[in-house]
Amino acid sequence: MAAPHYQRHIGPDADDTRAILDTLGYGSTEALAAAAVPASIVQDTPTDLPPALDETAALAALRDFASKNTLKKQLIGAGYHDTVTPAVIRRNVVENPAWYTAYTPYQPEISQGRLEALLNFQTMVEDLTGLPVAGASLLDEATAVAEAVQMMARLNSRAAKKGGVILLDEALHDSSINVTLTRAAAAGLPVTVTPVDVGTVRRLAEEGTVIVGAVVSNPATTGELRDDLPEVVAEVHDRGGLVTVAADLLAQVLVRSPGEAGADIAVGSAQRFGVPLFFGGPHAAFLSCREEYQRKMPGRIVGVSVDAEGTPAYRLALQTREQHIRRDKATSNICTAQALLAVVAGFYAVWHGPDGLRSIATGIHSRAVALAVGLAEAGLTLASDLFFDTVTVEVTDAPSIVAAACDEGFNLRLVDDIHVGVSVGESTTDADIAALLRIIAGSRVTVDTSGFVLDEGPLSGYLRTDDILTHPVFNTVSSETQMMRYMRRLADRDLALDRTMIPLGSCTMKLNAAVSMEPITWPEFAGIHPLVPEDQATGWLELISDLEDRLAKITGYAAVSVQPNAGSQGEFAGLLAIRRYHLSRGEDQRTLILIPASAHGTNAASAALAGLKVIAVKSAADGSVDLADLDMKIMEYGDRIAGIMITYPSTHGVFEEHVDAVCEKVHAAGGQVYIDGANLNALVGLAQPGVFGGDVSHLNLHKTFTIPHGGGGPGVGPVCVADHLIPFLPTDPWSDPSVAPAVVGGRPVSGAVYGSAGVLPISWTYIAMMGGEGLTEASRTALLNANYISHELAASFPTLYTGSNGLVGHECILDLRELTRQSGVTAADVSKRLMDYGFHAPTLAFPVAGTLMVEPTESEDKGELDRFITAMRSIRAEIDEVIDGKVAVEDSVLRHAPFTAESVVRDDFEDAVSHGHFTREKAAFPVRSLRRDKYFPAVRRIDDAYGDRNLVCTCPPVEAFDVSGETDGGSATSAEHEEN
Amino acid sequence: MAAPHYQRHIGPDADDTRAILDTLGYGSTEALAAAAVPASIVQDTPTDLPPALDETAALAALRDFASKNTLKKQLIGAGYHDTVTPAVIRRNVVENPAWYTAYTPYQPEISQGRLEALLNFQTMVEDLTGLPVAGASLLDEATAVAEAVQMMARLNSRAAKKGGVILLDEALHDSSINVTLTRAAAAGLPVTVTPVDVGTVRRLAEEGTVIVGAVVSNPATTGELRDDLPEVVAEVHDRGGLVTVAADLLAQVLVRSPGEAGADIAVGSAQRFGVPLFFGGPHAAFLSCREEYQRKMPGRIVGVSVDAEGTPAYRLALQTREQHIRRDKATSNICTAQALLAVVAGFYAVWHGPDGLRSIATGIHSRAVALAVGLAEAGLTLASDLFFDTVTVEVTDAPSIVAAACDEGFNLRLVDDIHVGVSVGESTTDADIAALLRIIAGSRVTVDTSGFVLDEGPLSGYLRTDDILTHPVFNTVSSETQMMRYMRRLADRDLALDRTMIPLGSCTMKLNAAVSMEPITWPEFAGIHPLVPEDQATGWLELISDLEDRLAKITGYAAVSVQPNAGSQGEFAGLLAIRRYHLSRGEDQRTLILIPASAHGTNAASAALAGLKVIAVKSAADGSVDLADLDMKIMEYGDRIAGIMITYPSTHGVFEEHVDAVCEKVHAAGGQVYIDGANLNALVGLAQPGVFGGDVSHLNLHKTFTIPHGGGGPGVGPVCVADHLIPFLPTDPWSDPSVAPAVVGGRPVSGAVYGSAGVLPISWTYIAMMGGEGLTEASRTALLNANYISHELAASFPTLYTGSNGLVGHECILDLRELTRQSGVTAADVSKRLMDYGFHAPTLAFPVAGTLMVEPTESEDKGELDRFITAMRSIRAEIDEVIDGKVAVEDSVLRHAPFTAESVVRDDFEDAVSHGHFTREKAAFPVRSLRRDKYFPAVRRIDDAYGDRNLVCTCPPVEAFDVSGETDGGSATSAEHEEN
Repeated sequence: MAAPHYQRHIGPDADDTRAILDTLGYGSTEALAAAAVPASIVQDTPTDLPPALDETAALAALRDFASKNTLKKQLIGAGYHDTVTPAVIRRNVVENPAWYTAYTPYQPEISQGRLEALLNFQTMVEDLTGLPVAGASLLDEATAVAEAVQMMARLNSRAAKKGGVILLDEALHDSSINVTLTRAAAAGLPVTVTPVDVGTVRRLAEEGTVIVGAVVSNPATTGELRDDLPEVVAEVHDRGGLVTVAADLLAQVLVRSPGEAGADIAVGSAQRFGVPLFFGGPHAAFLSCREEYQRKMPGRIVGVSVDAEGTPAYRLALQTREQHIRRDKATSNICTAQALLAVVAGFYAVWHGPDGLRSIATGIHSRAVALAVGLAEAGLTLASDLFFDTVTVEVTDAPSIVAAACDEGFNLRLVDDIHVGVSVGESTTDADIAALLRIIAGSRVTVDTSGFVLDEGPLSGYLRTDDILTHPVFNTVSSETQMMRYMRRLADRDLALDRTMIPLGSCTMKLNAAVSMEPITWPEFAGIHPLVPEDQATGWLELISDLEDRLAKITGYAAVSVQPNAGSQGEFAGLLAIRRYHLSRGEDQRTLILIPASAHGTNAASAALAGLKVIAVKSAADGSVDLADLDMKIMEYGDRIAGIMITYPSTHGVFEEHVDAVCEKVHAAGGQVYIDGANLNALVGLAQPGVFGGDVSHLNLHKTFTIPHGGGGPGVGPVCVADHLIPFLPTDPWSDPSVAPAVVGGRPVSGAVYGSAGVLPISWTYIAMMGGEGLTEASRTALLNANYISHELAASFPTLYTGSNGLVGHECILDLRELTRQSGVTAADVSKRLMDYGFHAPTLAFPVAGTLMVEPTESEDKGELDRFITAMRSIRAEIDEVIDGKVAVEDSVLRHAPFTAESVVRDDFEDAVSHGHFTREKAAFPVRSLRRDKYFPAVRRIDDAYGDRNLVCTCPPVEAFDVSGETDGGSATSAEHEEN
Repeated sequence: MAAPHYQRHIGPDADDTRAILDTLGYGSTEALAAAAVPASIVQDTPTDLPPALDETAALAALRDFASKNTLKKQLIGAGYHDTVTPAVIRRNVVENPAWYTAYTPYQPEISQGRLEALLNFQTMVEDLTGLPVAGASLLDEATAVAEAVQMMARLNSRAAKKGGVILLDEALHDSSINVTLTRAAAAGLPVTVTPVDVGTVRRLAEEGTVIVGAVVSNPATTGELRDDLPEVVAEVHDRGGLVTVAADLLAQVLVRSPGEAGADIAVGSAQRFGVPLFFGGPHAAFLSCREEYQRKMPGRIVGVSVDAEGTPAYRLALQTREQHIRRDKATSNICTAQALLAVVAGFYAVWHGPDGLRSIATGIHSRAVALAVGLAEAGLTLASDLFFDTVTVEVTDAPSIVAAACDEGFNLRLVDDIHVGVSVGESTTDADIAALLRIIAGSRVTVDTSGFVLDEGPLSGYLRTDDILTHPVFNTVSSETQMMRYMRRLADRDLALDRTMIPLGSCTMKLNAAVSMEPITWPEFAGIHPLVPEDQATGWLELISDLEDRLAKITGYAAVSVQPNAGSQGEFAGLLAIRRYHLSRGEDQRTLILIPASAHGTNAASAALAGLKVIAVKSAADGSVDLADLDMKIMEYGDRIAGIMITYPSTHGVFEEHVDAVCEKVHAAGGQVYIDGANLNALVGLAQPGVFGGDVSHLNLHKTFTIPHGGGGPGVGPVCVADHLIPFLPTDPWSDPSVAPAVVGGRPVSGAVYGSAGVLPISWTYIAMMGGEGLTEASRTALLNANYISHELAASFPTLYTGSNGLVGHECILDLRELTRQSGVTAADVSKRLMDYGFHAPTLAFPVAGTLMVEPTESEDKGELDRFITAMRSIRAEIDEVIDGKVAVEDSVLRHAPFTAESVVRDDFEDAVSHGHFTREKAAFPVRSLRRDKYFPAVRRIDDAYGDRNLVCTCPPVEAFDVSGETDGGSATSAEHEEN
C-alpha cells in the first residue's frame, strides 16, 4: 500500500532505495547509517516529537495558529509599515518555486534573472538615497546600522585607532541602537548614544572627542524629519568623521536624499516596498554609499560584466570582500542576505514606477498631514511639524487612547504615557484618518485629502527636485500583463530546484514543500506587526514556541532562540554567548577560538565580529581535526581559549570518529564547544550535537529545515544552547537601550525579537509533517544518496575524504586536482560545463581548492542522481579527450562552456564559437536526455575580472544589449522588450 | 501622477495610446470608438456600476463574501465529494499562470505539456472504467449523461428511427435526470425514467418497446452498488440496446469496471480526484467508450501522432466530429471543456499512483463500512449493504439528525424525512465516524479502521482483479520534488499568456489578473458543497447575485443566469429559452433559426441541440448580413421562424452598420433575436445588446470577463434575457424530476444551480476593479489595438473586412488567399512559422478559409503588438522569397516550421532539416529580439492525418520517445526521466 506521508519529502522510493543499497552493499538505510555514524555519538532514543501530520492535518493546525492572531490596521511604525503587496508579485514571485527555490547566484550564467531583479533593487536604492553604489540587501535595518558603524570604522581607521568614537543618534529605533551596541561592544568599537546635531558634534569635538563617524536618523523613530541634515553632515565631516543616514525609503521618494545632503552612507529597510510585515521579518535592508567606499561595503553586490561574446551579463561583484574568501578579514560575516525580499521590493518599484511611488508616498503624506492638522485644530500638541508619515502627539492618557484605537481596529504606537504615534500606511484611507481624529481628539470631521498639494504642505522646502528611477525598467511596465511576463522571462533565465537538482555541498538544497509555503502569505500570519500587543499574536507565539521546543528536542539542547535571521547571525549569537559566558565568570581573557582549517569562512568572520581571535587547527591527512595539533594549541593557549568551533559532520563531508574526544579536550581546557549546524542534515535523528559534546550550535532552517533559499535569502539561523548558556541567548531588541542590564547576560542580535518570523511556519510544517521517524529517515537517505554519488563517480572523479567503512556523510568532495594537472581542465570548467547538461554546479573550491563538493540531499530520487552521474561521466570523457591530446584545453567544450541557444545556432558557429574543435551537438546536446527539455543559459561564460575592474552596479543602459537592431519592425519595440 | 488603477488591466499606457492614435489619425480613444461603432446603437449613458475598487479593497470585499460562507465537513455526496487537493498541484497548476492562462491546444506544437497532462487524464479514465477510449473531459456529470444518451441515439440510429426509447435509471442523481430530460426533450429523443434491472428491461422489451439504450447508475445516488451489472448490460444488449454506466471514478479503483461488465459507455465526474467542491463546479466529467464508437464521441480527444521527424507528438484527434468543423452535424456543441480540471485530476492520479489511489479508496470504504456496521449494530436499517462510500440509513426523524450533525460540523444528505445519507470522503477520519455514530445512533464507540481487509468486506466478490494505471507516468512519481519538476517540465513546453500575446480572433485571450485568481482557492469558497443549506453559502449567493446584476447592467438585459458552465451551454440555454417562449405561446411551429454563414460552428450545433433547424443567411460583399437575403428568408419561412442568431460585432470583426435593422426585421416577423456575446469585448460600455435589439444573449466570462482559458476550460456562459424571457431561464437541476412543471418554463442545463460557481469570483473581481469607466476604456482600447495591427500590417497582409470609416472592431481578418495563390504558402504555414518567433498563432481559417483572424485585446501593450507586427512582416518577407522564386515553398522555412532546439543544433542540419535551403539562424532566430529569451517548441510540425488514421489516445509507451539510449550512464535513468 501507499508509503508513509513523509516519504513525499524523500526522493528515492522503496525500489530506488533498494537499488542504491544493493550498489553500496548494505541491507538497509539503518545499516548504512550505523556504518557511517560513529557509535560513540549515536542517538540512542528516537527523537521525542508528536506524531507526523499529513497535509490536511498540517494545514488545519496552521489555520488554527493563524486564527489565534488578530489582524488590525497596523499604524505602529517603528520601521515596519503597512504596505500592499501587488498580487501579481505575490503570485508570480513569492508563491512561485522558480523564484523561491533558487540558490544564491554564485553561478551567474544560470542566474541572470534574479541578478537583474537584484540589480533593479540596487538601482532603486541608489536613486532614492542619492548615493551611487548599493548592495543587494542586508538582513534588517538594525543590523544594517551596525554594519554601517563597522564600515565607518574600517573607512576611518585612522580616527578609530586614535580612540575615536561613533555617535549613534538617540532618535534611531531602539532596535537599531541595541543591536549596534551589541555589535560594537563585541568588536570593541566605542559608540556613544547621543543627540546628533551641530551643537553636540561641535561640543564633543571641542572637548577633544575624536569622531570616527555618526549615524543620523532621518526621520527619527518618532517620525520627525530633520531640518538640519546638510548642516549636521557638514559639521561631522569638518570634524573628520563620516556620516551614515538611516532613512525611510518611501519618504525618500519625496524628500531630499542623504546623498544630496552630503552623507557617506545610507541605510534602512525596504520593507514597505511591498513586503508584508511578517511579524518582524524577513525584510530586505539596504546600504548605499559613495563610490570611493564601495570596496569596504558589507554583503553582496551585483555588478555588470560581459560574457565570452561581449554581451553584458550580471554577476556578484567584489566577492574578495566577503567572508567566504576573506574569512576573519571580511567586511562582514553576512552570507545569506534577503534576496527574495529585495527582489520583491525591486519589483514593487518596477510595478509602480516613479509616478506610482510618488502617488503612494504623497497619498500617505497627505493623510498624515490631515491627521496632524486635525489634531492641532483640536488643540493637541504635536511632537513635530516636519514629518513624512508618522505623527506623534501629546495626549493626557496615551494607554487608553491606544486601547480605544485597538478596539476600533487600529494599532497605534504607545510612545510613552503621554505620547501616541500614528504611522500612516499605504492602505490607510481618509475614513481611517477621520476615525483616528475621533478616537484621539474626539473630533467629528470628514477628511478629504484629494486636493492635497505637496508643495504647500510641511515638506515644502525639503522636497527633492532630482529625477528618480529614470531607468527604462522602472518606466515601461504599466500593465499587469507586462509585469507578469517580465517576471516570467527573468525566472526562465535561471535554474532553480523546480527544474534540477542543485547538488551544492554544505548548502543542502532540498525540497521546499508547497504546503509549507502556503501559510506564509496568509494575512493572519503576514499582516502582524512585530510590536502588536501579545494577545494579538497568540498564534505566532504558540507556533514559534512550539518550533523552538521541537528544535531543542531534535538537537538535544536545553533552549533555542530563533532570533538570528541568518546563519551568520546565529554564529555571531552563539559565539557571543560563549564570550559573555566567560565574561560572566570573570574569565575575560578567554578570547581565542579554535577553528579547523577547513571551516566555513563565515565561522572566522563571525568570530571576529564577536571579538574573538581565530586560532586555526590543522587537518590530519584523513581530513579530520588533527588531535595532536589540537593538543598543542591547547597547551600553548591554555586559559585564553574561549572554545572551539567545529562543523559536524565536518566540512570534508565525513563523520569524524573522535569528535567526542575533541569536545572533551576543549572542555577540559575550560573552553566551550560550538558545533556549527551547517551539516545537521546528516544528523537529525541520528546524533544530537547537544548530547555528544556541544555547548552551543546554530542551525540553518534554510538548509536542514526547508526554508527555501530564495536566491540568497531569507535565512534563519536559530541558536541552540545547553542549560548553562541560556542566560546568554538573544534578548529583546526593543528594550530601552538607556537601561543598562544588571548582570552580564544576553544581547539582541537582530532587529525583531523573532527575527525572520514570517518564514518560520515553513520549518514548523516540515517538522510536523515528517515526525521523528520521517526526519531520521531523511537523514539516512541523505547519507544514502551522497554515498551513491561518491561510489558511482569513483572511477571518474575520486572522493577526497571518507570516514569509517569508506563512507562519506551527506556530501562528498570530488577531487579534480590530478585531472587538472593532467588536462588543464579546472573545477570551474566542469562547473560551467554542467550548465550545458542542465545542472547547477556543486560547491566549487570549498573546503579544498580544485575540488567540487556534492550534496545531493535526500530529496533527489535515483533518476535525478543518475542523470547527474551520467552528466559527470560524460564530462569525464570530455576531459579524457584533452588528456589524450585529441583537443587542447583552450579549444575544448569544457573551456568554452556554457553555450547559449544563440551561440550554437549562429551560422558562423565554426568561426566564432568552436573554431572547428567541436560540433554544435556536442556543445549543446552532449546526452540524449536533453532532447525534449533543454535549458539554455542566458549568457556565455562571464568575465569575472572585467566585472571587478569595471564595477557597475546599476542597471545598464538598454542600448548595451544591442537587440534593438530590428529593421523590419516599423514601429520600434518598447524598451521593455529591447532590454530583455 | 499615477494612472487609474484599472489601467493595470489595459496594455497600452498613455504614451502607447497616443502613439497608436497618431498612427491611426484619431485624437482619442473615444473618437476612435465613435467612428467605429454605429451611432444608432451607441450606449448613451455610462454603465451604472459601483465605483472601481483597487486591489486592496477588492480583496477586502472578497474576504467579506468568503467570511459569509460556512465550512463544514461535506458528507452530502450526490456526486460531489470531499477530496484533498495536493498542495503541490494547487500551487504549481491551479495557481500558476503557465497552466491556467493557456489556450485550447489547437496548435499542438506549442501545447505538448498540457496535451500530455490531458492524455494522462484520458488514460486514467480508460483504465478505471475498463473502456479503451476516453475524451479529454466533458462539462459535468449531468451533461455527460445527456451526451451519452445522445451518443447512444447516434450509434443506434436504426433503433432510434424506429421510435425507440432510452431508459434512464431512476437511481441517477436528480441533476443528471433533469439535465438529460431537458436535452432529450429539446432534441426530440424519447427517454423513460425507470428502474433499470433485468426484469424491467425484459418486460419493456416484451411489451414491444424498442430500446435504443439504457443509462445505469452504479452506484445509485443513494450510494448503493449494483450486484447485477453484467446481467443488466447483457439483457439490454440482448434487446438491441446500448448501455452507459454512470460510475464513481474513485469506486472504480476497487470495484469491477463497467468495461468488464460489458458496458458500451461510461460517464461520471472526476471531481473527487483532487478538485475542490467549488460550490458545484467547475469539475471535469469523463466519458469513455468501446473503440468502435470513438468517432461518435462528443468533445475533445487527445491523440498521439508523430511530428515531421517521426517523434511521437500529441494533438487533438478526430476534430472532424466537432462543432467548429461539423457545425449542426457535430457530435456535440461542446467547445470549451474542463481542461484545467482534467489536468488536475490526471495529476492527482500521477501523484498518488495506483497504490496511493487504492489506499485512499480503501480508507474511504473502510470508514463507510465502520459507519454501516455501527449503525446496524445500533439497530438501524441501512438502505443497502453493498456500497463504496455512501451509507443511507433509515431514521425516525431525518431533518433533526441532519441538523444535529450540522451543529457538530458535518453536512449530511437529507434523502427524505426518514433517510439520511452519509458520503465518506478522503479527509474523513475514524473520529468523524465515531462522532457520526453518536449523532445518528446515540452510540458511544471508538472507531479503528486500521485493520480493515478489503476482501473480507462487503465488496468481496465485486472487487476488480485487473491492474490499473500501469503506465510508468503513474508509477514513477513518489516525491514532491519529482512531481513539481514534472509539472514544470510540461508547463515549459507550452506557450501561454504568461510568455506571449495569444492573438486569437474571437477567443479574447486577455489578462487574467492575479488578484482575481486568489480567492478561488480559499477554502471558504472552494470548500462549499453545492447542496449545503443556503445559510452556509450566504457569501456565495451574494457574490453570484451581485455578479448577475452587474452583468445585466453591462448588457442591458433584464436578468442573467450563470448556470450554463460553458459558452456552448449558454447558447443552448438561450436558444432553449426562445424555443420554449414560442411553445408557451402555442407557436410550436417556430423551429427555424436564421444564422449567418459566418457564424461560429457552435451556434449551429447548439441550435441542433435545442431542436431548431438552421437556415443560413448569406453575407454581403462587405461581410455583413445580406439584408436582401434576410428579407427573402423571412418571406420564405414566415411564422416558422423562431429567431435569428447573430454575433456582434460580427465574426468578420466589424461593427455592422444596420444591426438595428436586422433586429427589427426579425422582430417584425415574430422571431426572437439572439446576440451571441462572443465578441462582447468590443461592446462593453459602448453598446448594449439588450438595448439595441437582442432578446437573449450568452456571454463568455472566460473571454470578456477574464476567467482564464485553462488550456481549454473551465468556461462560463451566462445567459442574459429580456424581461419576457425571464420565465425561461435555467432552473434548479436538483428539483424532483418526477414532478412535472405546471407551465412551460425554464429547464436546467447544467448539473449545478450556479454552474461553474468556483470561478465566478474571477469575473466579479474584474468587474469590481474596472468599474464602468474602466470597462469602457478596455473596450475602446481593444478597438485601438485591433485597428493598429490591421493598419500596420495592411501592406503585408491586408484586412479582409472593415466597417464604417475603414475601421475594424476588436479583431481583424488578415487575408492570405492571394499570397497563397502566388506562393503556395498557406495560412497554416504562417501559423506554424509564428511559433519560431515565439507566438501563438491567430485563429486559423475562421470565419473565412485561407485567413488568419487576429484579436490582440486591450491587454497587449504597444511593445508586444510591435513584436507581433515585426514577426508578421518578417514572415511576409519570407513569403516574398518564395514569390520571387528564391526558394520553393516546399523548401522554405515556412513549410518546415516550427523548429525545435534539437533540429537547429543537430550536426546534420543541412542533410536532415534544411537541405541547404535555409540557415539555422534563419530557422530559429529570424529576428534579433529572440536572442535572450527564445522559446523552442517541444516537437516539429505534427502530422494530423497520421494521427487520425492511427488513433491512439492513451499514454504511449516510454520506448516510443527513444531517449533512453544513453550508453555512458551506467545506472539507467528512471522511466520518468526517459519519458520527458
